[in-house]
Order: sequence, then structure tokens, then C-alpha cells
Amino acid sequence: MPDFSQINPSAKKTGLVSFDEVKAHAGRDSCWVVIGDKVWDVTSLLPNHPGGTNAILEQAGTDVTLAPGLPTNSFVHRRLFDRLHSHDVLDLLPPGSLVGYVDQDTLPKIVHDDPLTEEELRILKARESLPPPSAALNLKDIERFAQQVLTETAWAYYSSAGDDEYTLHENSAAFKRYWFRPRVLNKVSRVSTSTTLFGSETSLPIFIAPAALARLGHPGGEVNMVRVAGEEGIVQGISNNASCSLDEIVSARRPGQPLVFQLYMNRERAASEALVRRVEREGFNAIVLTVDAAVPGKRERDQRAKGNYSGIVPNGSSPPAGKGVAHAISGYQDPDVDWADVKWLQSITSLPLILKGIQCVEDAELAFENGVQGIVLSNHGGRELDFAPAPLTVLHELQHKRPDLVRERDVYIDGGVTRGTDVLKALCLGAKGVGLGRAFLYGNGVWGEDGVRRVIEIMRGEIETGMQLMGVTSIKDLKPELIRYVDRDLPPIASR
Amino acid sequence: MPDFSQINPSAKKTGLVSFDEVKAHAGRDSCWVVIGDKVWDVTSLLPNHPGGTNAILEQAGTDVTLAPGLPTNSFVHRRLFDRLHSHDVLDLLPPGSLVGYVDQDTLPKIVHDDPLTEEELRILKARESLPPPSAALNLKDIERFAQQVLTETAWAYYSSAGDDEYTLHENSAAFKRYWFRPRVLNKVSRVSTSTTLFGSETSLPIFIAPAALARLGHPGGEVNMVRVAGEEGIVQGISNNASCSLDEIVSARRPGQPLVFQLYMNRERAASEALVRRVEREGFNAIVLTVDAAVPGKRERDQRAKGNYSGIVPNGSSPPAGKGVAHAISGYQDPDVDWADVKWLQSITSLPLILKGIQCVEDAELAFENGVQGIVLSNHGGRELDFAPAPLTVLHELQHKRPDLVRERDVYIDGGVTRGTDVLKALCLGAKGVGLGRAFLYGNGVWGEDGVRRVIEIMRGEIETGMQLMGVTSIKDLKPELIRYVDRDLPPIASR
Amino acid sequence: MPDFSQINPSAKKTGLVSFDEVKAHAGRDSCWVVIGDKVWDVTSLLPNHPGGTNAILEQAGTDVTLAPGLPTNSFVHRRLFDRLHSHDVLDLLPPGSLVGYVDQDTLPKIVHDDPLTEEELRILKARESLPPPSAALNLKDIERFAQQVLTETAWAYYSSAGDDEYTLHENSAAFKRYWFRPRVLNKVSRVSTSTTLFGSETSLPIFIAPAALARLGHPGGEVNMVRVAGEEGIVQGISNNASCSLDEIVSARRPGQPLVFQLYMNRERAASEALVRRVEREGFNAIVLTVDAAVPGKRERDQRAKGNYSGIVPNGSSPPAGKGVAHAISGYQDPDVDWADVKWLQSITSLPLILKGIQCVEDAELAFENGVQGIVLSNHGGRELDFAPAPLTVLHELQHKRPDLVRERDVYIDGGVTRGTDVLKALCLGAKGVGLGRAFLYGNGVWGEDGVRRVIEIMRGEIETGMQLMGVTSIKDLKPELIRYVDRDLPPIASR
Amino acid sequence: MPDFSQINPSAKKTGLVSFDEVKAHAGRDSCWVVIGDKVWDVTSLLPNHPGGTNAILEQAGTDVTLAPGLPTNSFVHRRLFDRLHSHDVLDLLPPGSLVGYVDQDTLPKIVHDDPLTEEELRILKARESLPPPSAALNLKDIERFAQQVLTETAWAYYSSAGDDEYTLHENSAAFKRYWFRPRVLNKVSRVSTSTTLFGSETSLPIFIAPAALARLGHPGGEVNMVRVAGEEGIVQGISNNASCSLDEIVSARRPGQPLVFQLYMNRERAASEALVRRVEREGFNAIVLTVDAAVPGKRERDQRAKGNYSGIVPNGSSPPAGKGVAHAISGYQDPDVDWADVKWLQSITSLPLILKGIQCVEDAELAFENGVQGIVLSNHGGRELDFAPAPLTVLHELQHKRPDLVRERDVYIDGGVTRGTDVLKALCLGAKGVGLGRAFLYGNGVWGEDGVRRVIEIMRGEIETGMQLMGVTSIKDLKPELIRYVDRDLPPIASR
Repeated sequence: MPDFSQINPSAKKTGLVSFDEVKAHAGRDSCWVVIGDKVWDVTSLLPNHPGGTNAILEQAGTDVTLAPGLPTNSFVHRRLFDRLHSHDVLDLLPPGSLVGYVDQDTLPKIVHDDPLTEEELRILKARESLPPPSAALNLKDIERFAQQVLTETAWAYYSSAGDDEYTLHENSAAFKRYWFRPRVLNKVSRVSTSTTLFGSETSLPIFIAPAALARLGHPGGEVNMVRVAGEEGIVQGISNNASCSLDEIVSARRPGQPLVFQLYMNRERAASEALVRRVEREGFNAIVLTVDAAVPGKRERDQRAKGNYSGIVPNGSSPPAGKGVAHAISGYQDPDVDWADVKWLQSITSLPLILKGIQCVEDAELAFENGVQGIVLSNHGGRELDFAPAPLTVLHELQHKRPDLVRERDVYIDGGVTRGTDVLKALCLGAKGVGLGRAFLYGNGVWGEDGVRRVIEIMRGEIETGMQLMGVTSIKDLKPELIRYVDRDLPPIASR
Repeated sequence: MPDFSQINPSAKKTGLVSFDEVKAHAGRDSCWVVIGDKVWDVTSLLPNHPGGTNAILEQAGTDVTLAPGLPTNSFVHRRLFDRLHSHDVLDLLPPGSLVGYVDQDTLPKIVHDDPLTEEELRILKARESLPPPSAALNLKDIERFAQQVLTETAWAYYSSAGDDEYTLHENSAAFKRYWFRPRVLNKVSRVSTSTTLFGSETSLPIFIAPAALARLGHPGGEVNMVRVAGEEGIVQGISNNASCSLDEIVSARRPGQPLVFQLYMNRERAASEALVRRVEREGFNAIVLTVDAAVPGKRERDQRAKGNYSGIVPNGSSPPAGKGVAHAISGYQDPDVDWADVKWLQSITSLPLILKGIQCVEDAELAFENGVQGIVLSNHGGRELDFAPAPLTVLHELQHKRPDLVRERDVYIDGGVTRGTDVLKALCLGAKGVGLGRAFLYGNGVWGEDGVRRVIEIMRGEIETGMQLMGVTSIKDLKPELIRYVDRDLPPIASR
Repeated sequence: MPDFSQINPSAKKTGLVSFDEVKAHAGRDSCWVVIGDKVWDVTSLLPNHPGGTNAILEQAGTDVTLAPGLPTNSFVHRRLFDRLHSHDVLDLLPPGSLVGYVDQDTLPKIVHDDPLTEEELRILKARESLPPPSAALNLKDIERFAQQVLTETAWAYYSSAGDDEYTLHENSAAFKRYWFRPRVLNKVSRVSTSTTLFGSETSLPIFIAPAALARLGHPGGEVNMVRVAGEEGIVQGISNNASCSLDEIVSARRPGQPLVFQLYMNRERAASEALVRRVEREGFNAIVLTVDAAVPGKRERDQRAKGNYSGIVPNGSSPPAGKGVAHAISGYQDPDVDWADVKWLQSITSLPLILKGIQCVEDAELAFENGVQGIVLSNHGGRELDFAPAPLTVLHELQHKRPDLVRERDVYIDGGVTRGTDVLKALCLGAKGVGLGRAFLYGNGVWGEDGVRRVIEIMRGEIETGMQLMGVTSIKDLKPELIRYVDRDLPPIASR
Repeated sequence: MPDFSQINPSAKKTGLVSFDEVKAHAGRDSCWVVIGDKVWDVTSLLPNHPGGTNAILEQAGTDVTLAPGLPTNSFVHRRLFDRLHSHDVLDLLPPGSLVGYVDQDTLPKIVHDDPLTEEELRILKARESLPPPSAALNLKDIERFAQQVLTETAWAYYSSAGDDEYTLHENSAAFKRYWFRPRVLNKVSRVSTSTTLFGSETSLPIFIAPAALARLGHPGGEVNMVRVAGEEGIVQGISNNASCSLDEIVSARRPGQPLVFQLYMNRERAASEALVRRVEREGFNAIVLTVDAAVPGKRERDQRAKGNYSGIVPNGSSPPAGKGVAHAISGYQDPDVDWADVKWLQSITSLPLILKGIQCVEDAELAFENGVQGIVLSNHGGRELDFAPAPLTVLHELQHKRPDLVRERDVYIDGGVTRGTDVLKALCLGAKGVGLGRAFLYGNGVWGEDGVRRVIEIMRGEIETGMQLMGVTSIKDLKPELIRYVDRDLPPIASR
């Protein structure tokens, strides 16, 4: 007996529908499908389905979700629907589209001529024994759980980086070369972690870095993050390659909730222009132009992953074999972008413009000379050029050569953060805020919204405790004096 | 037949008491309990039992110590008494409380419906094959034995540190970056390791750093350390969170034996004031105010340990689930302490005041400007802020920037010591003395008093031999000239 | 039925020949042998066979290639012919030497009294499951495959290096200490990797470093490399110890294809002179004199390899037991070579002269003072003096002390390259081109020509992508400003 | 049938002696023993046996060597004689002491009520499969073999070092931080490795560092080394704690063969004086006074080794339980030695005086100011003070601060050498010669004389090849210009 309490309130409640009846509606005139435990009439969707009419017609009159017998919260999606959509999209159907609940007894006894793969079995088993988010005490715990429950494709796409992954490792390792010079005997019972990022108030000096394809990990995709970021009061960057639609994302947003839009320049400038104008209309707070990914990096683990990711990739573009997800989704990106394009962007929007992917002092200077509102020191999480420097290293050098820029302009960094103390070190060196990408993908991939929330909880706890133990109570107190670079600057030992 | 020779001499000797008779005294009027092999009348204790009347009444007429059949020196305490008390507390009972020896034959054959847990079995087995203290040649041997015989809770609480434990590791690693420049052809048959710490003569330049909850490891708790420190002539710091009472500690002290008291500032200043005044009355030699633990650090191994530690925590406060021992015992500590509180402390006591937890040159300067008698460069054994610098690093910098302070004032360090040569390096850099915390907790946890003594023996041997091989015969000869900082200061190779 | 389409067109087509008939031609007057599926009359070869007359007579009237039943593409050569020759040498036989195809049915059923060794079985098995070259995403993949499919002798000879192999490791490790300072917002869709090496245009800034004994890995030997280098437009260095003959190599060359000849000075200067004159006649583009191998290095893995390599070594010289391949093939090399010999070489040839094996600034200066056209900073792939510096280190120093030489003269390096980014770093530091040796031996050893091609494909892809992500579009844009040496040059952290 | 050809020519040849007859001579009046296959009359030895009369009387009338059935070359010594003596000592017996060969048939069938221990079985087995010395290509191979065939006691005593063995490791590691700057195009076919050490010509710049107890590894003990050093033309240092007697050593020496004597100052100066005078009479070439071992270091692996080493220790002194060999043999050494003793030594001998164990520049200066002829920069192979600096580090500093001393005086180093290139680096930095201790103990322990010879062969080959590849042909050409200290001295990268 299905659980009627979960039914969409906007849908009219109906009786059970037999699967034979569903099968009878398998044409262009009347097209029904079973999705989960419900039957939907999707006839009206046929002409304007984003993935094309045929994508639906081929499945007309069938169960397009899971094979019966599998748990509905399963992350093993054998049918197309769940790999391509969040169930929220059903809310977009016109009233009356919900035909009713399917009569489970009439569903065909599926003889598993198409049995679960080893990977599917592994994932189902891992998810069964998955503890609640509170079991994760730190971001590495979450990463560990993610590796257990994600598909090989998702794990490889999220975690991989360029070539030998030296930069991936260095991004984290650089943080570990800085040590604190903590102060004591300040009153620290009340600590404020609030600050202003991308022109908006936030409750923490971190933001969700824009990252593609959140739905590879969890059906809720980027929308999960929007909901939690709204609750928790932090800024989220939305990737140009997000797997949820702009509509879905905007619908999930709270009033006034800050979102920034990450843009890859399209070979067709008109497409980029249309996108920017739409984003501005939707009330996004800034445009973040990525400049460190002129071409896709060589991510070998992504390329080696054997998983089937057709259907996940936006625009229905089919990935070239053996090139990995990264290549599959970047075909439209233009390698020929220069400072003139920056000027052009500024001419078509009044939104603040941020450049993401600055990797040396000279380009930081150029960026501000070109009138941008901020920069993100970033190497794309190590996913592009291997041996690109750690953002923290670039920040260190910038803080030395252009302390004025660091002091007066908005300089962000992202990449390699695993602890609240990492964030605090970046802020001591002058960063205004610090982006985390993979951590949120992992949290979302493991527990959906609850995982996203757990990432923020962990960071909030670590940042607060870190500040208290450093003897500071507000973000503006974080200064270079509070850190030391390894032991290199120690003086020689005085001899007599 | 019980061994009557071990009976408390102040108790009158009696015949065997049957367990039936014990059971008959199970009320508020007459309350007997079996503790070990004896029967005690604890009726008089009911109104003023520190843990409350009910805590006793619930056990009235029973054997509150071990299950029969277990060795009495077992560290598997299935009953409340041994987890909460040292047997010495029985001395505090009024004369006549000892009813007599229990007739073992009348004790119920305990059918183990409450069988030993896996952990208890592991510990019993490990203790059976435990060699004598002389088998431990160095402090790391002792640590290894401790990991084998301690409960998971005790091991996790003692050994854990903040976040990723970088600082825990660095505390030790920093010592290993300093190398000696030994002198030869001095007469070294006679070496004196004596010096003055906290204003008292000691036989070694080390002290027992104050640390909480020694009874987690051994029923004798901090009292074991007091006894041995007295014998061996070294100074001990008593933690505000000691698991033995001040009475027990003071009773165990030899006449004139130096003790310093470590204080956490209580949210209720009146409580701190009362405590300080009592400590001064008891003849302690100094107050050591901890300033590096405004809030508890994030000790994840402590938080993950599943052990049951209710009953061990002082004040009967019950620890919040999943937060670990550290959180459980620190609820009263005030995060809002500043230099005005230092002044206030100085106003209510004439004892010397030491600040423990100084982590940078600026705060060292401030401390002495505020008139304290000494400082301990410390990061709380790495248990608070991860990436706090190694105390030796801070000392190195202080020795360079303020050689006058290092020369003229009392600067101590603690944390990370595993060898006598570590102590000697700190002294070469200007430390007056070096504290060891975990080493004593481990030694005590493994062998009680004998383990504490073994720690001191090992350190004494290593310090003496180290001095002889460096060509020095007294503590004051230890100078910066005798060490080198890694190979960084080597000159370039002369070319022609 | 044999495949007649593969028959050498210059040979007359004949009927099947029975093995009995072959056996009847087993003398000096008429000497036939079976090679593969054909019967050859090698009588005319007897007087001037390079390996001596007897070497043939001992096998007269037999099948000198593989044992029947083994795959013909097998790398298990049980008979002498395939270990010593490429099948191309048969083209050198006079017309009419091809008697015809052997009648397979008449070949003796070989009872394996001489069964396959464990190593042969291992190799056959490894080759069976060998994937296509496209499965190798990077040079390390190729190296891994090579270790699986090569004989122990070949692997040991190719991979081993001097003493403890510190220099071998350092050659690669040095590259990993340099990090990029990438530029963004340049248009990079069109990238040119073309440059000029050894006076010739090439499509890439890499060249095939001269290396001995390519036929240890694959019967096609150096000729495979010549063919692919011609197709791909890159320069190849031919080793003085190549396992294919100069004739074979020259025949495989395309018109105008650049080749340089690596020379070891012969104890008999006349032999060197004759060789140089021949090389000049054959149209080679330069002479590369090796100066870093006065005597063979101590390559212990080579010495320990138990494989039988008699027959592979050129000149039929038999290697001293337990000294390894390196000693076996270097007997003629003169340890007594000095700058006068450089002058002498310049006097006997008008070809450009390059010195390979320069390892310090002083010798680089001397080389150009002595009028050479270029130098290769090299330590022989770590195969000679252990603790010779990495070529990149020498380049770094040379770039600092003599930027004029680096800017105006031809300075190459080789050794330790595993990634396109390694090449780019060397070019940023001033190298004109970068040689790869082992990578080509491994590629050739695994897949022959296809493996050589794969090495070039991988490097081309990595170099192009690397340049795009660094923001440069031509080789001449690669400048020191684009790299940083580890974190050593970071400034001290500014304190207020 | 015994092999009569091996009989000592000075002994009269006799018939076979029955064991019953031997047993009849078991008293003070007539005392026979079986040693190997011969019967000796040791009655005359009773009053002046160095180990005391009783040590013999207890064994009178028995077979004091091996149990029958064990191979005579066995390293499993179940009886006292072979553990305490070389068979050469029998030559010291008066003529006529050889009674004759024992009749093997009369020897008791030994029922192994005293079976072989596990360790003895392990060693016998390891020795059975031991390859010839040529199988060892380098010193680490020899060390590996030694670990397999030595007793636990011997291995622990030889290999152990102070505390955590940081200095042991650093001694070797320091060499690995220096890299060559090799020169090319010098004629190097003829290389001379000859030089002068301790005033004597030697064929190599290495010497056998004095080390105690060579007989722990091989019955031939130090005498093996004397023989081979004589053949190979290198200088040997004889330890004050040698396990062969001075008589044995001097007898084995060739005419004019250079030997230096290592002295520990005895608490009884008269004993030292007598020893020095005897050494001078015996024609030793120098006295080497050890100054870095005022007291024994804490060698924990030595202390943990459970082996029975009574009987090996000179002077019959019995080692205190659990203190290890090092403590057992050093009881007579005086911790109270100073520069006045250096003067005193110079007053009682005309031999050159070398101080071994100098560890800083100041003491090197003091040594030469006190008129010694040379110093050995040494930390006793890491066996004394842990964190004593590597000798190479001290040499580096000395070469910088006092290049005059390094240039004009005799400065040696020892410790940590595993390769010929290590020796060459030390010589480049100014060392006159380099001592090896453990390598010779290991070689001797594995193969006796052949092992000692193999150590020298390996070093000779590596030193020669290293010089050739560095482009130098004589020891005096080794200069600081030929090495570089890691990458620390690299210049910053020039930007434009």
C-alpha cells in the first residue's frame, strides 16, 4: 500500500492505476509514465521537453524510474529518469498531470535478465551501513564516506585532478606549512564569524565554490546546496555546468539569498550574453568569470573511470569515449578569451565581475587595473595545469608585493581546504573569503541536504574554536602577525 | 583464607562475616558493603558522601568492588567503587567501620550474566603478560605498554590532540631538528642535574606537568605521582581537574615537598578565589594559571572513543554524548579571562604566579610586564589549537628576540619530550625546566607508582649520560653554543 | 597455407619446400635455412657474415627462427636469428636467395625437451593481455607495461642506473621542485610547438635521445624509431651502440629526415674517423660526442640480471660474466679523451659538433670556447656517476651565471622527463630542446612502432595543453618568469 | 680418519689417542683436553691461564670445542674454547703440548640432550646458503648477509647506536646531501688512489677504523683484518677492546705494515702507560686516543639482545645483566680525561697522537693547539650521544671556518660510509682519509678474511670509477669545487 502522505499537495488524489492502463498510454496523443510510485501524464511535455520529444516517447507507457524491489532512495538508477532529473521537476508539470498511484501488484515481475552490476551492489551495500552525518567529525570523514557510496564515475570526476595531481596535493599541503602565533588572555566567549563576501553579508568567511554536476552524486543536485546555503546564510556559486536548471535553482532560493554565477565564456558570445542577461534578471549578485581553464586539464582518473555517464551530461552532448566527464561537458568553452572580453562583459552587465583562476601577482594587478570587483586566486582545484601554484602561495606573494590590493580589494582563494584552521590562515594572509568545492559535492553526494549542512556545521565549529584559541573574536582581527611560515624565518641561534 | 596481614592496622580485627549478614544491612539505618575482601559499615558516611547518599544506598548490602574470581589488582572494574575511589579513602572512615573479612564461601557464585566485555578481556590479558618497569628502556616503551593496558577511553583521552594532531607531532619533531655541538676532554665523572624550578630545589630539570584524571589509568591516580615525586625530589604540578582530591594529594605529600597548583579560571570567580586561598593554605608553592585553553580543543580521537567514563568525571557531571572527556570536564572554565584577571589573581594570593600556555614572544613580554614570576611555553600538549607552534620554536624565537628574558626570568616549556636529549636542547636554548605530562600518565597507568618512578629513572639516566657526552657537568653549563639548528646555518662551500 | 602476399617482391615466387630438402643443404657448398615461413639460400653469405662463417654453418639446414607452435609475433626467441637480426637484413641477400616457402607439414614435430622457461612463459602471458597503446595515458603507464613484457635482461639494462640510483631519481625529482606562474586571458586556441633542434625544424621541442640496443626490447629496434620520427617530424639521435646497422637505419629514413649521430671515441682513433666520415656521407645532421661516460658506471641491477644476452651484443663480443650489458658493449670506448680530441674531431668533419654530458658551468663555458655548436646537459640518465647533478639543476645554475650562453647558444638537456610540463620547465629555464631516451625504448619494447608513436602523441598532447594553460602559444614565449623554484624564494610574512 | 696434513709442524706427530685416555688426565697434575681433532696437554698452562686456572680445570679431560657431528667451520660454538680463543693461541703452548689426534671412534656418541637452539639452527641454515663474497656488489649487500648469519648478540652489538639512532642515520644521510660537479674531457684511464694516512703510504684513502670484538662475528677476529690489510696495503686501527691479543695481531702483521692503536684512557693511568709503551715497542705507527666516549652511550638494541656473550668479553669481566656488550667491556674507561692527559700522553710516547671523536670546530682548534698530529671527526658511529652531528657536517663547517687546518693538518673522518662516492665527497671537503668500521666487522663476520678483502675490493672499484667519472686522476685533485651542498645554494631564478 503506497504512502499517500508523501503525495504532492498540488496534485489531485486519485485511486490506484493498473500498469496495463499505463501501457495503453504509450503514444504521442496520450503519454503516461510511472515515476516512483506514481503515474504521470506527460503528454503536454512532449513538444517542449528539454531533452527532446523522443527521449520521452521511447519510454512511454513504462516505469522510467527504478526496477521494482529496489529501495526508492537507492542511488542505483537503472532507468533514465532519475539520472537526469530531480523529482522536483514534476512540480513544473501542469495541474492534473498526476494520474494517481500505480497498483504495485500489476507491475511486471521483473526477471532480472539485467541484474545489478558489481558496482551497483557495492553502492547499495555501502549506503545501507552509512551512518548519520553527525558521525563525520571533519571534512576528511565526509570524503571517505563519499568514496564509499559514489559511483566510480562520480568519484573520479569529483576527485581527479591534472596529470600527476601535484597541484591537487600542494593545494592542501601549502596550508600545512603555516603555523599560528596564537595570542592568549583575550576574552573570547563571544566570537563573530560574520563577514561580507561578494558584497553580501554571510555568517561565515567561506562560500560554496561553483562546481559542475552535483547531481552525479545526489539526485537533488545543486538545489540541495541552495536550500542549505539559504538556511545557513552563506554565499553559493552556481556553476555554468550545474546539473540543475537555473529555474530549479532560482525557485529554491530564499528571498534575498546571495548567489553568484560562474561563467565559462561560450565560443558563441551571443549565448554568453543571453546567459549573463538572464542571470542578472534572476537577481544573482555577481558574475564570476573562470579564466584558468582555457582548455580542459588532463584528468587521468576521470579518463580511466569506466562508468556510464550518458544522460547526466547537460545538453545531451555525448562524451567522446575515454576522454572523461571533464571533456564531455566543456565543448562550448572558448580558449580564446582575453582582457577585451573582460571589458565586453563589463559592458553588457552591471553586476560585479569577479575573475576566478588568477595564479600570479601580475595577473592580479592586471585584473584590478581592468576594473574587476574581485579575484579568486585558484587553480581550479588542481584540475587544470599540474604544477600550478597553491592559491595560498600566490596569496602569500601578493600580500608581500601588493599589500594594498590585499587590504583594499576583494581577494578570495579556493582549493585544498580541509580544516577551519586552513580558512583562518588564508584570512590572516589577507583573503576576504575562502571557497570550498569538493567538500560540498561530497557532503551532498553522501547525505544530500543533510550532508551539505554537515559541511557547514563542521566548518563553523572549527572556525569558531580556532578563532577563540588564537585569541581573536572577529574576522577583521585575523592578521599576518598571527601566522609564521614553517620554520624558515627562525633566526640563527645566538652563540654567546 | 584471606590474608589478615594486609588489614588496616587502625581497624579492629574480627572474624569472618557471611554474605547473608551483609545483605541484612542494606538500609539507611545500617549500611554495609563488601569492598575487596573486607566488610565495611558505611552508615555514618550516608549523609555526607561526596557523591550523594543514594549512590551508596543503591549498593547497600552488596559487594561494590570486583566480581569474585577476578584478580583484585585487576584493572577491570565492574562495580562502581573502584572506578571512583582509591582504597585510601577507607582510612577516612571512623574507627570501627571495618566490620571484618567476608567469608568468601558465602559469596554468591556469580553466574556471568554480565560477562566480561571484549575490551575487559583484552586488558586483563595484556596485564597478565606485562613485564616489570625495568623492561621499558625509554619513554616510548612505556607509551607502547600504556596503549596495550589502558581502556580505550583512557588511551584516547590521554593521547589525543587537536584536529589532525599536527601540533602534537610537531612538539616532538621540533626537538629532532636541533643537533648538538658536543665538547670533549672535560672531566665528566661527576655530573649534577640539580637545579631550581618554581623556586624549589629539584634533583632534575624536569617536572611533572599538571594533567587531569590520572585515575583513568590507575586507581592510585595523582597520589601515586605525589609519593614518587617526593622520593625522587622533583616538582609536581597538580591539575585543577585532578581525579584525586586535594585532601588525598596533600596527605601523600612529604614535609616540604614542592607542589604547584594548576588553575583554570572558573566562570564563578568566587570559586576560583576559594580554591586559590585553600591551595595557599595547604602550602603549595605556586599557582600556574592555564591560558591556552579558553575553550576545549577538538580532540577527535577522544570524541570517537566509545568507552563509558561516567563515574570518573569529577563532580558527577555527566559528559554530553560524543563530545569526549575533554568537554565533559571543562564546563566550568571561563573563556573570558584577560590580563585584568591576572592582576586580580595577584591581588588575592601571595603565591608566585606562573602563566602556562604562552605561545608567542609578544605574550611572553606582556606576561613579565604584568609581573608574573614565570611562564610555561606550551600549547597544552597539542590538545588545543592545531598548528600552534612547538614550544621549542617559541623558545628559539624568544631566545633570539629577548635573550634578557630567557636569561633573567623563569621560562619553562612542556610538550613532546621523549628523551633526555630533548630536555638538554631546551635547556641549551634557555629553558629553566621542562615539563612532562603524558609520560607520567602512561607510567602511572601501566605500573602505578613503579611506573612513575621508572619515568624519572629513565630521564635521569638519559640526562646524565647526555650531559657527560656533551662535556658538561652542571645545568648552568648548557648554552646555545652547544646546539645547531638542522643544517640550515651551514656556510656555502668555499670554491677555491 | 602461408600468406604469399607478404613475400619480398624482389624474390622469385616458388612452390613449397619440404624440410627434408632443407636438411640436405647443410654444408659450405649449399647452405639453406628456414627463417619464419620461408627457406633461404645463404651460401653466398658464408664468407662475409658479420658474425663469422661458423655462426651460420652451425645452424645450416635447420629452422633458425622460432620453434613451431609459438606465435610468430612472439617475443620469446629460442633461436639465434631473431635475437641478432631484423628481418630487413634479408633484403640485403642477393636476388634468388629466397628459395620458397617451407612446407609446414614436413617440419619436425618438436618435442619440447627444451621447454619454455618461466621467464618466457611470463612474457608470453603478459603480451597476450597487453592492451593497445591508447590504454597508456602517460609515460609512466608505458614504463609499467614495459616492465611486464620485457625480458629481465632488457628491463635491467634499460632501467638501471649507477650505484644507488640517487641521480636517476633526482633527474625526475628536480623537475618536480619547479612550479609554474601561469598567465591567463591570452588567446590560446592555436598553439605552435614547432622549433629548431640541432639546426633542423621539428614539430616538438623534444628529441629521441641516442640509446643503445633498442632490439633488446623489440626486433624492429632503432629502425622503428626512425620510421615514426620521420612521420612525426622529430629529430632522432642514433647511438654508436645501436642494435640496427647504419644501413638499416639510413634505409628507413625519409628524405631530409634529421638524424644526429652519437659517438663514443674509439681507442682506435682511425675507427672513429672512418665512422665519422661515413656518418657525414650518409647525410647525418650532427655529431654528438658523449663525454660523461669515460668508463662504464656501476649499474648493479644490470649486473644482477641473470638473462642471457649473448648474441645481442654488437660485434659478437662476449660479455664478461656478471658485469652486465653496459660493460659488455663498451670495451672499445676510450677513457682518455680530452679537449684536443674535440679539436681533432672538428678537423675531420664539417658537421656540427655537440658535446653530450656536460655537468657544470665551467665545462659548458669551455665547450663553447672550444667552438662546439651545442651542448647537452646530461648525466647519461643517471647511469654513470651517482650523485651527478640533475641536468635541470645545471641548467638553472647556467641560466644564472651565463644567461648569455643560454640565450644565444644551443643548450639541450636530457634525463628524467616524464611529463610535458617537465619539458616546459626546462624550456622556461633556457633549454632549446629536451631529449627522452628510456621512454622511447619502453614504447618500442612494448608495441614497436606504435609504442614509439604513442610516446610522441602523449608528449605532444601534454606540451600543447601545458602551453595553453600557461597562457603561451609559441615555444619562444617560455621564459624564466613563468616558473618558481619551490617555495624557497617566498618573502617573509609582513608583520604590520 | 683425521687429516694429518693440517697438523702444526712444530708438534711431534703421534698416533691416535683414545678418549678414555683423555678422560684420565682431568686433574691439576695432568690436564688434557680435546680441541678439534687433536689432544693437547695444557697442564703447563694452568698457573698462568689469562682466564684463570679454574676455567680450564672445569673442562679438564673433555672435548672443549664442538659437539661431534657439527661441521667444524660452524659458527655455532657450543663449547667454551672457540668462543674465547683463536686456534692460533695453541702455537703459544710449549713444544710437546700436542699429544696427538683423538681417536674419533672413542668419542662419546653425544645424545643431544642439549639440542641446538632456534638461533643456532637459523645461523647454520643461513650459512649453508651463503653465496661467495663476489655475490656482494656493495657494502649494503654485505650488511644484509651479516644480519642473516651473525648471532643476535653480535648483530645487536655491531649495528646498534645511541638512543633513537638519529645520529647513526644522519651519518649516512649527510653524505647523500652533497652532489658532485663532475668535470669531463680529462684523460682518466690511469687513476691513482694512493695517499698517505697516519704518516704511512696506503693504496686507498680509507682505513679500517678501530672497533671492538671482531671475534663476535668470526673466530679469526681482528687477525683476519690484519692479514688482509697487509695484502691490500691499507692502514688498520686496532681497538683497545680488540678480541684478539696484541701478540696475535702483531704476529699476523707483515714487516712494515702500518697499524695504529686506539686507546681508551684507563682509570689506572699506569695501565695506560704500560700499554702505550708496549704498543710503541711493537712498532705501531700512532696512538689514537678516543675522546667521544667518556661514558658508554645508551644502545638499546644492544641492551635488548638476549644472547649469551659471557666468555667473549675480554678480561673475563662478566657483563651486568641487561646492560649490553657496550657496558660490559668499558668498565675500565675513565670519564675524567682532559687536555692535561693529552699532554701527559705526549710525554710518555714519541708516537704521533691522534684524537678521535672531535665534534666541533672549537675542539678541532684546541686539538692542534695542543700539538696533536691529527684528528678524527667522529661520533663513534652514532653509538654515543644521539644527535651528535654527522662528521661530514663538522668537516663542512671546519672547512669553512678553518680552511688552513683542513689544508695543512691531518683531518680524518669516520662513520656512515656506504659508497666510494661518500669517501670522495669527504676528500673534496678536505678529509685526508676516511675510516670504515662496521663494514669490516660485517665482511669479517660473514666470510672472514675473504669478506674483509671483498670490502676493500668494492671500495677500491667504487673509488676508482668515481674519480674517473669526476674527471680526476689523483687524490690531491679532489677539491671543494667538485661538490655542491644540496640545492640550497642555487641562485634565485632570473626574471627578465
